Parts: sequence; structure tokens; C-alpha cells
Amino acid sequence: MKKGCKFGTHRVIEPKGTLPQPAWKIDNNMDIFDNEILINVETLNIDSASFTQIKEQADGDVEKIKEIMLDIVEKRGKHHNPVTGSGGMLIGTIEKIGPDLEGNIDLKVGDKIATLVSLSLTPLRIDNIKEVRKDIDQVDIDGKAILFESGIYAVIPDDIPQNLALSVLDVAGAPAQTAKLVKPGDTVLVIGGTGKSGMLCLYEAKKRAGVTGKVICLGHSEKSLDRVRKVGLADEYVVADATKPVEVMERVSEVTDGEMADITINCVNVPNTEMSSILATKDDGLIYFFSMATSFTKAALGAEGVGMDTTMIIGNGYTKGHAQIALEIMRESKELRELYEELYA
Amino acid sequence: MKKGCKFGTHRVIEPKGTLPQPAWKIDNNMDIFDNEILINVETLNIDSASFTQIKEQADGDVEKIKEIMLDIVEKRGKHHNPVTGSGGMLIGTIEKIGPDLEGNIDLKVGDKIATLVSLSLTPLRIDNIKEVRKDIDQVDIDGKAILFESGIYAVIPDDIPQNLALSVLDVAGAPAQTAKLVKPGDTVLVIGGTGKSGMLCLYEAKKRAGVTGKVICLGHSEKSLDRVRKVGLADEYVVADATKPVEVMERVSEVTDGEMADITINCVNVPNTEMSSILATKDDGLIYFFSMATSFTKAALGAEGVGMDTTMIIGNGYTKGHAQIALEIMRESKELRELYEELYA
Ligand SMILES: NC(=O)c1ccc[n+]([C@@H]2O[C@H](COP(=O)([O-])OP(=O)(O)OC[C@H]3O[C@@H](n4cnc5c(N)ncnc54)[C@H](OP(=O)(O)O)[C@@H]3O)[C@@H](O)[C@H]2O)c1
Ligand SMILES: NC(=O)c1ccc[n+]([C@@H]2O[C@H](COP(=O)([O-])OP(=O)(O)OC[C@H]3O[C@@H](n4cnc5c(N)ncnc54)[C@H](OP(=O)(O)O)[C@@H]3O)[C@@H](O)[C@H]2O)c1
Repeated sequence: MKKGCKFGTHRVIEPKGTLPQPAWKIDNNMDIFDNEILINVETLNIDSASFTQIKEQADGDVEKIKEIMLDIVEKRGKHHNPVTGSGGMLIGTIEKIGPDLEGNIDLKVGDKIATLVSLSLTPLRIDNIKEVRKDIDQVDIDGKAILFESGIYAVIPDDIPQNLALSVLDVAGAPAQTAKLVKPGDTVLVIGGTGKSGMLCLYEAKKRAGVTGKVICLGHSEKSLDRVRKVGLADEYVVADATKPVEVMERVSEVTDGEMADITINCVNVPNTEMSSILATKDDGLIYFFSMATSFTKAALGAEGVGMDTTMIIGNGYTKGHAQIALEIMRESKELRELYEELYA
Repeated sequence: MKKGCKFGTHRVIEPKGTLPQPAWKIDNNMDIFDNEILINVETLNIDSASFTQIKEQADGDVEKIKEIMLDIVEKRGKHHNPVTGSGGMLIGTIEKIGPDLEGNIDLKVGDKIATLVSLSLTPLRIDNIKEVRKDIDQVDIDGKAILFESGIYAVIPDDIPQNLALSVLDVAGAPAQTAKLVKPGDTVLVIGGTGKSGMLCLYEAKKRAGVTGKVICLGHSEKSLDRVRKVGLADEYVVADATKPVEVMERVSEVTDGEMADITINCVNVPNTEMSSILATKDDGLIYFFSMATSFTKAALGAEGVGMDTTMIIGNGYTKGHAQIALEIMRESKELRELYEELYA
């Protein structure tokens, strides 16, 4: 065997010099390198944008869907939809661990894992497509995949149903970062606190800010706020449109006696909420943008335009231990788990 | 008099509920509120994209340029180019300071300042356009402008020529943030270290990282690196294309014995350099993206894709004391000042 690059560049076929994700084609030969992991794949969770496109192209025909999927993997060595550019994730069991990694990681042969890196960079071989579950974007296959040394994954626990675990893992970076950023006594605002990532952030924020802190949930409707109120995730509940900075500033000012937030976590799924986040936060505060709808220039120029010295962090979806932190919430809070099962699993 | 909103929302005419920058029209009545500052304007420094558009529309005719500029301010109450969306900055002397601010800020009547917030949000009245300096995007006028309480500015010092000061102030946020982030012993990489903002960052990085640290300048050509080498701004000089992550990773690995950078400052002016920044930085390191060509999603998904826990900061152009920090470099380093005068003033 031989040692590969930890980021998988040794498997890039074309164009050379790029990383596996942007590469057009990667090598899906299943003889692993010394620092790779071989997975026996059970289910592909295709990214929703990608699967919608494939379904359309196939006119909803299952055999046609299978053909398209096989063709993508045949051409690219990975399930990287050439139209949408997106991937998805997979579930499978560990079949083999390269000798360089054996003993250095918390995995053993037979463990059931979900990969948390995109299918758009994961070497994949499909031997047979067994079942296409069109309504939930899941496809069961016989096949193998490879995880690079830098690849992230989560062991699927026995005590949490698989679909609930997947829902939580999808947004695990947000509560884990919240847990790392919030200190006792902080005033924490979660914009989009009523959503899938937002509620987990509220939970962690309340735990870390403690009794001397204040956690504010900002949602778009009384209906969604009521759901969160019942579980008691926040100290204050605010209805506002996050795309209206002056409105958000006034509402947050009211519930903080004009002090504003020390830390703002942005978990919305709509664009144009940078300015609201900035105005709701103290001058020397910190904003964590988890929302993928965030615009770099709107945030940078927005803060400068109002002379705010706010630290603004790009929401990296990964942080060490994020899967454990997020899954643990489902064990700690019965109420939140029930709500999550109802809404997302 | 009366107290206005510190961000100037009290001057927004339409649409109501927005901030002065995105607003279509703001009130340019020159009776100041208690927390505003009145400026006697001397020169407008029109944003280069905006001025190019105006010159084109006017077919280069100076009288036509004047007409277009007067028309913009007449319609919007600010010099906010409706085609490019951009503004610029202005130079003038303080004429009046609102009673709420008097004594609380480091300004007095008669001080000559440059506003560091965009003209696209600054209430402006032009009484007369005196001279259009077409080649350097500067326009001398008789007129007044207003600075809001949140507005940022820099006093133009006596000992630094005005155009040199303006060049430095344009990128002042980058060295000031560098000064705040770098600690003794750090390995600091400046990508685009051969440019206007990059050289100032190198200077601050070297000062803060000290003899136990290591400062690496990454530039695109030997020619521009040679310029920086002569001034001795870095400990290591690396030629690489910042849009090629594997190349950058290998070069930085060579000069750091595989350790990579604790802090990376991205000062390039081209897109697609997020991945290089991530791979050049330690897993628990920090990246400061000053480049406006940064893509939020490319940074967030890029780091996740390679399982890196890197902290990534959105380069807010403003940080407290940024003007002083940047101007001070021109006093401290004769060599850098000479290079700056040659290249940018
Ligand atoms: N960085 C990463 O790696 C990563 C990973 C996964 C997801 N994400 C991003 O995280 C974001 C949120 O994901 P999610 O799954 O938590 O979404 P979600 O469950 O759909 O939640 C969206 C939230 O935004 C709120 N919202 C929408 N429009 C609003 C408005 N105008 N004003 C105020 N609130 C508004 C919703 O409030 P109501 O319920 O009241 O309508 C809801 O609370 C997405 O942008 C996604 O791209 C990032
Ligand atoms: N955040 C803010 O508020 C703010 C304010 C002002 C400016 N900015 C941004 O800061 C950035 C830099 O501004 P600047 O005035 O310093 O620009 P600049 O003087 O033009 O410098 C650009 C630098 O990028 C380097 N570069 C370009 N392409 C490269 C490549 N492919 N590989 C490696 N290096 C490359 C250049 O290297 P060579 O010289 O070797 O070609 C040069 O060092 C711009 O994106 C600007 O938008 C931000």
C-alpha cells in the first residue's frame, strides 16, 4: 500500500493540481491507500437540489433515475451532479481502515457511520441500485466508497433513530460553534431561532450563558415562536423580519434595555439579513453567520458603513466534536427531541 | 436641535425603515441634529467604478460630468451612483459639531478630515463644482456634508502628504486587524503580500510576531516580491498562484517545515483563493479575509470539505484606531513610505 495526500489529491484524475471536490474526475479504484478508509455503502442521501434535478431529467421514472446516477458515477468517479454541482452524504459500515489510521481514530471495522463530507468529493463505486426512495431523496445501493484522512464522519448511535440522527447531523456545526463561543453571562441572539439549526443553537446558548445570561429567539412568525416557547428554549421571544434591520434593531433593543447582543448566531435561510445581524450586536460583539445565504461583501461593507468593530465569523460547517455535541442534545432534552422527531425525522 | 439615530435613519426619506446606504433618497438639509457633524467639503474622491461610468455617460465632457454629479445629489441627497451603486469618500474641514458629540470625540472645529464611510450614505449638498480632476477621480467643490454619530473618519495629519494619506487610509483596516490578531511567535502568511494592503499587513505582522515568529509573503511574481524583499518586510518570500490550492499548500509547507501558518491574511484582488488560504493554515488557525473577492460559500464549504476547524473572519474594513495604526506605519518605516509614494501617491 502507499500513503496518499490527506485531502485526497492523489486520486484526482483531471484536472491535475486541483482538489477532489472541484475536480471533474477522481479515481474510484477501491484498493485503499495507507491513510484511507473503505466503506461498504448502504444508502446515499442525495442533496435535495441534485435529486430534484435528476428526477426532472428522468421524468420521475425510477429506472431512468438509476441510469442517470450510474452514469454520473461512471463518468466522474463520484456522485457529483454536473448540473447542480452538489453531492449529498452516505451511510454505510466500515469495511477496512488503512494502517496509518488504525488505532489513531475512533472507528473500528463494522461501525455504522454517516460521512459528513460531500459526495461531490467522495470516491464511489455503485455495483447495484437496490431501491430509490423518491420522496426522501434516499437511494439504497450495493457499493463501496472511500473516506480520505481529512474526511469527517459521525458514528450513528444505537439510541437515536437513523433519520433523526441525519437531521441533527446536517446542521451539527451550528450548535457546536455556539457551545464554543458562548460564555456565562452573555446575551445571545439567535436569528432564525425557530428553525432546524436555530433551535439547537438556542439550547446550547442557554446551557452556556447560564442563569446570568440572556438568550433571545428571533423568529418570523408567532406560530413558529410558539413551538419554541413550549419547549422553553429561550429567555425572550421576538417576532421580526430579519431582512428589516431597523425593525430588528428596535426589537432587540427593547428586550436588552438598549444593550444589544454580545453574540449573534444567524441561522436564517433567506438573503439580506447581514445588516440586521450587525445592528442587533454590540460594537465589540461577535456574529456567527451559519446561514449559507450570507453575502461576504454585504457583511464587510455593512459593518464598515455603520462604523462597527464587530467580529464576523464565516460559519464553517465543521468544528471538532460537532456530531457528538449535536447528538447529545437529543439525549439531554426529551422535549426538543420530540419536536425534532415531529418536524424533521 | 434634536437627537438623531446614530446610524442616520432619521434622514432616510425613502424607502422608510431602511438605512441611509440602501435608501434611495436621504435628507440633505444642512441643519444638523445634536449628534451629527457638519463638514465644509473641499474634495470628493469618487469611487473609481462610479467615476468611470460617469465619464463614459458624459463622453468625457467636463460640463456634462458636472451636470450628472449635480443631478445624482439633487435626486438622492447623496453622491450615490444609481448605475454602479458605489460612492467614494470626501475631504473637508469640520464646521460644526453637535452638542451631544462635542467633547466626546477627538475632533474640533477646523480639523481637516477624510470621511471613511461611503459617499453612498453621506448627506451632501453641492453648491458649486470648482474643478474636475478626471485622471485621479477627484472633484473639488463648494458644499457641505454631514457625518452621523456612527460615521468613521480620519484626521489628515500635517506630516503626511494628502494623497499618500488617502492611499493608506483606503486599506487601513487590514494592517490594524493584523496588529490585533498576531501574537509573538506566530507564523503569519500574507497572501497578496506584495500589494497595497498586503505590505502594510506584513509590516504589522513582523512587528507583532517578533523574532520568535515567522512572516511569509506570498506574491504572484518575482518582480513584485523583489520590491518587498528590498524593504525587508518578511522572513520568507514565496511565489505562487493563489488560485491553485495544492501549489500554495506545497510552497507554504516548504517554508514552515510542514507546520503551516497560525494566521493567514488574504489581501488578493482576485476570486477563488479561499481554498489556498484554508490549506495554507493550521487546522486550529485563523484566516482573515480582507479581499472583497472572497466568496462566503466557497470558504464555508471549502473548510468543511477538508475537515478543517479553521476560524475564518470576514474582513470588516473598520476596526477601532485603524487610521492611526496605518498612518503610523508611514512614520515608522522610511523605506515603506518611499515605496508607497512611488507606487500609490
Ligand atoms: N454552514 C453550514 O455548513 C451549513 C450546514 C447546513 C445548513 N446551513 C445553512 O443554515 C441555514 C438554516 O438552515 P436550517 O436547516 O436551520 O433552516 P430552517 O429550518 O428552514 O430555518 C430557517 C429559519 O429562518 C427563519 N426565517 C426565514 N425567513 C426569515 C425572516 N425574513 N425573518 C426572520 N426569520 C426568518 C425561519 O423562521 P420561521 O420558522 O419563523 O419562518 C426559521 O427559523 C440555511 O441557510 C442553510 O444553508 C449551513
Ligand atoms: N475589507 C475592506 O474594507 C477593503 C477595503 C479596501 C480594499 N479591500 C480589498 O482588498 C483587496 C486588496 O486590495 P489592495 O489595494 O491591497 O490590492 P492590490 O494592491 O492590487 O494587491 C493585490 C495583491 O494580490 C496579488 N495577487 C493577485 N492575483 C494573484 C494570484 N493569482 N496569486 C497570488 N497573488 C495574487 C498581487 O500580487 P502581485 O503584485 O505579485 O501581482 C498583489 O499582491 C481587494 O480585493 C480589495 O477589494 C477591502
